[in-house]
Amino acid sequence: MHSNLYVEEKMEDKYSMKYKVNKILFSGKSSFQTVDVVETELLGRMLLNDGLVMVTEKDEFVYHDMIAHVPMFTHPNPRKVLVIGGGDGGTAREVLRHESVESCVMVEIDEMVVNACKEFIPQTSCALNDPRLKLVIDDGLKYVKETNEKFDIILVDSTDPIGPAEPLFNINFYKDIYNCLTEEGLVISQGESPFYHKDMQQKLLAIKSSVFPISTIYNFSNLTYPGGLWSFSVGSKKYHPVRDFEPKRVQDSGISFKYYNEGIHTASFAIPSFMCQNLSSYIQG
Amino acid sequence: MHSNLYVEEKMEDKYSMKYKVNKILFSGKSSFQTVDVVETELLGRMLLNDGLVMVTEKDEFVYHDMIAHVPMFTHPNPRKVLVIGGGDGGTAREVLRHESVESCVMVEIDEMVVNACKEFIPQTSCALNDPRLKLVIDDGLKYVKETNEKFDIILVDSTDPIGPAEPLFNINFYKDIYNCLTEEGLVISQGESPFYHKDMQQKLLAIKSSVFPISTIYNFSNLTYPGGLWSFSVGSKKYHPVRDFEPKRVQDSGISFKYYNEGIHTASFAIPSFMCQNLSSYIQG
Repeated sequence: MHSNLYVEEKMEDKYSMKYKVNKILFSGKSSFQTVDVVETELLGRMLLNDGLVMVTEKDEFVYHDMIAHVPMFTHPNPRKVLVIGGGDGGTAREVLRHESVESCVMVEIDEMVVNACKEFIPQTSCALNDPRLKLVIDDGLKYVKETNEKFDIILVDSTDPIGPAEPLFNINFYKDIYNCLTEEGLVISQGESPFYHKDMQQKLLAIKSSVFPISTIYNFSNLTYPGGLWSFSVGSKKYHPVRDFEPKRVQDSGISFKYYNEGIHTASFAIPSFMCQNLSSYIQG
Repeated sequence: MHSNLYVEEKMEDKYSMKYKVNKILFSGKSSFQTVDVVETELLGRMLLNDGLVMVTEKDEFVYHDMIAHVPMFTHPNPRKVLVIGGGDGGTAREVLRHESVESCVMVEIDEMVVNACKEFIPQTSCALNDPRLKLVIDDGLKYVKETNEKFDIILVDSTDPIGPAEPLFNINFYKDIYNCLTEEGLVISQGESPFYHKDMQQKLLAIKSSVFPISTIYNFSNLTYPGGLWSFSVGSKKYHPVRDFEPKRVQDSGISFKYYNEGIHTASFAIPSFMCQNLSSYIQG
């Protein structure tokens, strides 16, 4: 009985978002971060890493639809996909809905996140037993440096550039990613907030534009990331996510979506003027 | 010296957003609502009505660009504009940037909001002295029932359907609006959150679809409205905001925007799948 229990995500002491909690389901400390799963009154079950909201049952479909389906419908025939991070399983779940996928390798550094979600958030972790999924508990940075495998799509489903994900916001990581992609491959990364992480967003896109011939950014909006508007950035060797997009493939896939659709795919690349000012020199191809 | 002063917007006891306050600039109680202006650490000056965040200096450009410029670039030659509500002045400010505008009537029920913003938020209220602006302190409901004037565009810049704005979420109000519009006129209303006000959003669009031959909805995302994603709904007699939109008019206007642009205009009408399910029967024309 925790009648006055709340979880509060703080941005320094300037701003916070606070959710009423009915029950604490899991609370642990791994070698990398604190991991908590709570049942909230408003948004269902919620995963927090180091006190930051990662996913909730109510709105996880927005993030997972947008990180997965935009690249999966940009590449004409994605067979091999690599997910870096994404320990809750939601990104792999959406990737595996595509019939073209022969294998999905998921490299998550923190086994505690995977196990906590397997036990307490089946909504996102439900596809982790798919026979096409290979789960590797390891550092994504090390994995892309050492592997000889080539992927059609790589999804960097990371936390913010503090804590374990910090080295993932670095040019050497993207050079290694380039080498792990087929000649037609592309990479998508969680691209932060245009309001609150303007410099980091620019840095990430600048890295992509220096490594890939095609680089761009797209937006979505969920309930729980501070500021609402949030981005993914794209680095691509051959296919442009708007120019080479074929809406008919979406209809033909037979997949039903909660957020994504053909209109949203293209519309998400329309960038508000204040973002253009910051990023337009790094949008290319 | 209020070193631990915060303002907290609550959604029942389930969720809240809390902002650090450096200074309380104004605090009053009108016949309609409480009115507060505070200086926050993160978002600059902030107006709250009945404890709900209305505008902040940091993100007001998103809402005001999107409520004003989408209809102003849908109608080919908007000369007379009516703003209902909008006491902070930001909507009128954006309307008056269009050279075609001969007059803008702003009908705000609560003079205390206007006066507080004139004194403490010049960023939004700066155009209220424009000679083309006519400020009427009155009930918008009564105004549209009684006036003989005809407008090209009506913008319903209201608070949520609790408190003084409640009667603005009603079919009779939109029948009166229909009669106040020219034969080429259109109306835009603040259309609530698709996550948190699903039923109200549907009701508002259903009303528009029963009164106007063209009805649709578009989205934006700012920092301070709960859930990020937020909507405006459209009722139009003649012009469709996507089909009849001419991007060249935006370039020719010479106006510089912080959020709006030609790409955003069209993209904002792409509706996520979960919203389509709820609203598609009321999108027409």
